Amino acid sequence: MSISASVAEKVAEPSPRTPGAAAARTTMRAVIYDGPGKKRLEQRPKPEVQSPGDAIVRMVKTTICGTDLHILKGDVPTVSPGRVLGHEGVGVVEAVGPAVLNFKPGDHVLISCISADGTCEYCRRGMYSHCLNGGWILGNTIDGCQAEYVRTPHADSSLYHVPEGADEEALVMLSDILPTGFECGVLNGKVQPGGTVAIVGSGPIGLAALLTAQFYSPAQIIMIDLDDGRLEYARKFGASAVINSGGGNAIERVMSLTEDRGVDTVIEAVGVPATFELCEQLVAAGGIIANIGVHGTKADLHLEKLWSANIAITTRLVDTVCTPMLLKLVEAHKINPKPLITHRFPLERVNDAYDTFARAAETGALKVIIEV
Amino acid sequence: MSISASVAEKVAEPSPRTPGAAAARTTMRAVIYDGPGKKRLEQRPKPEVQSPGDAIVRMVKTTICGTDLHILKGDVPTVSPGRVLGHEGVGVVEAVGPAVLNFKPGDHVLISCISADGTCEYCRRGMYSHCLNGGWILGNTIDGCQAEYVRTPHADSSLYHVPEGADEEALVMLSDILPTGFECGVLNGKVQPGGTVAIVGSGPIGLAALLTAQFYSPAQIIMIDLDDGRLEYARKFGASAVINSGGGNAIERVMSLTEDRGVDTVIEAVGVPATFELCEQLVAAGGIIANIGVHGTKADLHLEKLWSANIAITTRLVDTVCTPMLLKLVEAHKINPKPLITHRFPLERVNDAYDTFARAAETGALKVIIEV
Amino acid sequence: MSISASVAEKVAEPSPRTPGAAAARTTMRAVIYDGPGKKRLEQRPKPEVQSPGDAIVRMVKTTICGTDLHILKGDVPTVSPGRVLGHEGVGVVEAVGPAVLNFKPGDHVLISCISADGTCEYCRRGMYSHCLNGGWILGNTIDGCQAEYVRTPHADSSLYHVPEGADEEALVMLSDILPTGFECGVLNGKVQPGGTVAIVGSGPIGLAALLTAQFYSPAQIIMIDLDDGRLEYARKFGASAVINSGGGNAIERVMSLTEDRGVDTVIEAVGVPATFELCEQLVAAGGIIANIGVHGTKADLHLEKLWSANIAITTRLVDTVCTPMLLKLVEAHKINPKPLITHRFPLERVNDAYDTFARAAETGALKVIIEV
Amino acid sequence: MSISASVAEKVAEPSPRTPGAAAARTTMRAVIYDGPGKKRLEQRPKPEVQSPGDAIVRMVKTTICGTDLHILKGDVPTVSPGRVLGHEGVGVVEAVGPAVLNFKPGDHVLISCISADGTCEYCRRGMYSHCLNGGWILGNTIDGCQAEYVRTPHADSSLYHVPEGADEEALVMLSDILPTGFECGVLNGKVQPGGTVAIVGSGPIGLAALLTAQFYSPAQIIMIDLDDGRLEYARKFGASAVINSGGGNAIERVMSLTEDRGVDTVIEAVGVPATFELCEQLVAAGGIIANIGVHGTKADLHLEKLWSANIAITTRLVDTVCTPMLLKLVEAHKINPKPLITHRFPLERVNDAYDTFARAAETGALKVIIEV
Repeated sequence: MSISASVAEKVAEPSPRTPGAAAARTTMRAVIYDGPGKKRLEQRPKPEVQSPGDAIVRMVKTTICGTDLHILKGDVPTVSPGRVLGHEGVGVVEAVGPAVLNFKPGDHVLISCISADGTCEYCRRGMYSHCLNGGWILGNTIDGCQAEYVRTPHADSSLYHVPEGADEEALVMLSDILPTGFECGVLNGKVQPGGTVAIVGSGPIGLAALLTAQFYSPAQIIMIDLDDGRLEYARKFGASAVINSGGGNAIERVMSLTEDRGVDTVIEAVGVPATFELCEQLVAAGGIIANIGVHGTKADLHLEKLWSANIAITTRLVDTVCTPMLLKLVEAHKINPKPLITHRFPLERVNDAYDTFARAAETGALKVIIEV
Repeated sequence: MSISASVAEKVAEPSPRTPGAAAARTTMRAVIYDGPGKKRLEQRPKPEVQSPGDAIVRMVKTTICGTDLHILKGDVPTVSPGRVLGHEGVGVVEAVGPAVLNFKPGDHVLISCISADGTCEYCRRGMYSHCLNGGWILGNTIDGCQAEYVRTPHADSSLYHVPEGADEEALVMLSDILPTGFECGVLNGKVQPGGTVAIVGSGPIGLAALLTAQFYSPAQIIMIDLDDGRLEYARKFGASAVINSGGGNAIERVMSLTEDRGVDTVIEAVGVPATFELCEQLVAAGGIIANIGVHGTKADLHLEKLWSANIAITTRLVDTVCTPMLLKLVEAHKINPKPLITHRFPLERVNDAYDTFARAAETGALKVIIEV
Repeated sequence: MSISASVAEKVAEPSPRTPGAAAARTTMRAVIYDGPGKKRLEQRPKPEVQSPGDAIVRMVKTTICGTDLHILKGDVPTVSPGRVLGHEGVGVVEAVGPAVLNFKPGDHVLISCISADGTCEYCRRGMYSHCLNGGWILGNTIDGCQAEYVRTPHADSSLYHVPEGADEEALVMLSDILPTGFECGVLNGKVQPGGTVAIVGSGPIGLAALLTAQFYSPAQIIMIDLDDGRLEYARKFGASAVINSGGGNAIERVMSLTEDRGVDTVIEAVGVPATFELCEQLVAAGGIIANIGVHGTKADLHLEKLWSANIAITTRLVDTVCTPMLLKLVEAHKINPKPLITHRFPLERVNDAYDTFARAAETGALKVIIEV
Repeated sequence: MSISASVAEKVAEPSPRTPGAAAARTTMRAVIYDGPGKKRLEQRPKPEVQSPGDAIVRMVKTTICGTDLHILKGDVPTVSPGRVLGHEGVGVVEAVGPAVLNFKPGDHVLISCISADGTCEYCRRGMYSHCLNGGWILGNTIDGCQAEYVRTPHADSSLYHVPEGADEEALVMLSDILPTGFECGVLNGKVQPGGTVAIVGSGPIGLAALLTAQFYSPAQIIMIDLDDGRLEYARKFGASAVINSGGGNAIERVMSLTEDRGVDTVIEAVGVPATFELCEQLVAAGGIIANIGVHGTKADLHLEKLWSANIAITTRLVDTVCTPMLLKLVEAHKINPKPLITHRFPLERVNDAYDTFARAAETGALKVIIEV
């Protein structure tokens, strides 16, 4: 039997989860970016397969990313008004194009924030974020996941099967935040058994780095933030020490915890010059500063001090190449991402969801689930 | 413009290199395996696109692999009578399926011996050879390249653009033999600047390892074979020393060349127990035995000697993940694979080509080009 | 102040832990190998500094290694009758030679089973086991640790400071067994987050690999042994599954636990052909067989199956380069080696200690501490 | 025979190269730093063994480093007036301390610019530059090599045997400049076969990076400088392209040579903000900026552009851990460092040597040999 015959069957086969009525739907609700400062929930045409590698996914749960807030501020010029927001979530496949090999209607799937063709020169190097035919496009240059349905290009490299028995809500944390903390922070930062780690920024991304750094059994993980509430989370999530940098003695305290050496891995999870420059003062000789933060301006690089320190500084847009590994570790109960979720809202209350997430300092929000 | 529209255009667009008459052809000549000991050149239906990711390539040059001789002996049970042989070559794209992103009719291409979907768990790890939907299938489980046309599945991950101005004949060496020598021998063997290398077997694969080992500037490359003619090639291709192992003192000579340490990288390029066991005696403490040979039987592993020697033994079926890199080095004139080609035959003399290649000891053949 | 002046002071300075009476002692009790099958506790001259890099250590706790049993069988030809046995333990520095930079009398130290000059070509590559002026010499080619005092050459690279507040007895496990399980099994086997591990052999070394494999958060660790008692330890020490290979279906069970892929890392911790060959059947494509076992005879290597499986087989004599890292992880309470200790004897009952250790199947012994 | 006996013999044995008269010498000529802007050649007491690991080396050839010019400007506060300058050269061992294992009087040796005890936590990690008992101390915190004799601490890790038949003058380039270019530029920059490299700065260090980058067969090496004379050297030493950045279009030209991707490895070999910031604009997504330059001030790090570019920036003080490898490659004629030497002076003309080196733009000097 040829592959194309098999694919034809897939397309024809009625989805077990999309009964007649649903299949007949032609519109859906979606969260639309309407220019700086504006978003609204409105009816939109339901997306359809456009390319052979596409899938159409009925969304079950999605979430809001710090990047969505940046978009709403008008800071992300690639996002045009009218765009459906969102690049995270889990759902159920409703239809697939004829080139999709690994998914069929009815499959429960995790959606990666990165779409990857799997074949371009960057994908071959594991740099899915720089895919020549993909990258971060969902909720950016094509319509995204804060909607009842989403079209996901390159489905074979961009969707993942939900393991049997998994808590689907917890898996939403694997669309973006956990791979980001792990790849940009922990992997790039080469966290090692017995090593020392400092994470500057104890928000959702910093906490994702904290959770995943523990895969490698460092001797110390020091969390640094200005917000005692977030540092309290850090303690619960496994930090060996927490430092409120508002005290003005963060450097002294880190040095005292590390016999004046500094730390082997410093993870920047904020994205402003002051926190990056703090990292430069915390890194040990031979250490690494792994940047996760999204920066809007330059920072001072003190090469007059660092030129001889045998250090590395790394940057990375998440590639989500670690997603299969993360799924295995969730399945094996080696990590539980669920406590990152602090609030839940139905789609019709999406404005409350954004508001709660945007005012995290007051609401104590980490990640906010939107139930579609 | 959607991707699918663009693909539709590709399919519709008349190929500049396949004028009307050719396009109308429905049959072609192909070299058919007809059961142990038998092959013949016969007319076959021209292949067509079956899956969205397929390409149809008009062959220009192909070659014969040692594996093809094994098939003819009946040693490869996955190959059924009636199969078109061959898994190497260059040609011109005649048609592509609607999911192919990177190739269009008229493109000059190198065909990889390995077909890779680029998205399965093995492809994601760079193990294209173990692709769940591909691997070594050409001339094995699907029809191959010793024909006027070939269907290549997963074209985006399995074809490569011929660089402008390249000598296409020389590139045929990049379908299999150079990636095999490089990935299985040189990369797995971790050849290093200043290191020592011994290659057991100076046939085409051993010479491919010799050529590509020089990318890493080892201090010594010692070639070992029983055939002085092949050792003569080895000298020309850059060996620092050659040893005819018929003399019975190969081990002593290697030890004398390496201050009695043995060599850092030993590459097995024959595939019989005696040569593998020789490698065990040549490897230095801390060294690697990188196996390339296709073995039909077990070998003795002398763990009573090696358990404390800090060595590694590696095996690998070529993944052809290094093909883009090899193309760049051919283009930059850092390697010239052309001298591996010793004979040329037109397709109608394919029997002579096989005969010349099979009797290499007498004919001096390394690689034999078949011009289609 | 010159370094030599400082060193002179060190030698002159009275040790706080070795009061006058002790310093005056000229003999000690030691466990002597007296030819195959024979050992005895006898009086010996107390060792003295012979080379500038030596330290003299007063032993506090030592232990017996499987290798000591091999020596007693007469299987280790480098050990001559009259040799003081033992290569593990903790103690207190009594004297140091003038070139020792990092230790002084009174320092509590862990003794590595490997002595390393730190400067030869092998030490520079981290292969302390192959040190041209050291390696495994204690209790082998020079007198060892089962005595009241031991001379340790190359003290700066071969001793480690006991961290403040540490349980010194537990640290005895860091002389040999934990570094061996970790370096030869876990590091060589490239245990990864989310990966699968099988360990063949659930004796002290296999359990040391089990404990240290968890530094890298694999999804599964499957322990295989013939002894249910040892498998019970394995469960307590963190195995995700245990298999008694006496059942004859070990391969089937491993395949069923790994979706028929086999395991990514197979660790051989027995040292006989049958267990090594079992490993060959358990390893997944792309996986590694990391040998720890001390082998006395060759094994069959099934290259006819493995040549195309992209696997690696590694061997290693422990280098103890990971000792500083292990000390940090013990200090950070990320690993507790104490449960490996099942029995304790004073030095005068050394015969009972050997007997208990040798009859482990009956006594349930893992590691046996000798209190000096 | 004990080691100490052997060492005692070494000390006693008359040096074959230091006949009676020389041994009786108690003074020597040396180049002394006399405060900012001042140096002089004067008589000094000949150095003696102070610590057990010391060697005394009679200098044969030495050279001047850019760092020596910085010292003379008063820019290196660790250097006090009265210090003997210099940290490079070849010579003959005259005496060794009792702990030295690998050298004896009469041995011809290469002196590393880095002294390493081989045993501290940094040395164990290959970071000799940060040795707790060494590092860059010669001609800095202890007397150096621009003298008739030098005391070299930690001789076993800091001296190297001159290979038989080697051109000793060429080996002076292995004291500092070649390891610096290779370790800080090529190794840190992960130069790969088929990759692209840009080196900003075509002075001696940049040219050392150019020479050693070729060990890894990159497809392109682009040299950038303001001085056409130095770019002419670059061409001779193997650059595939040279760009005079005075033209103002260096970025455009690099992009045009790399299909608008930028380069995989950018090596900074100047040490000022402008050149570092140029590197930020040249690096490709997924690439590395490997800093060699000694910086006296901070630079702007454009994280607003680079945060998502998957790049790394590395710094390093040379560790000279690659010296044995470089010696093997010089011996195997895979690299010829001799053309880096442009001028030669006897010790009594040391002022002319400094002057020629300091006015390199006019004199065309690369490295200047001082014959002692």
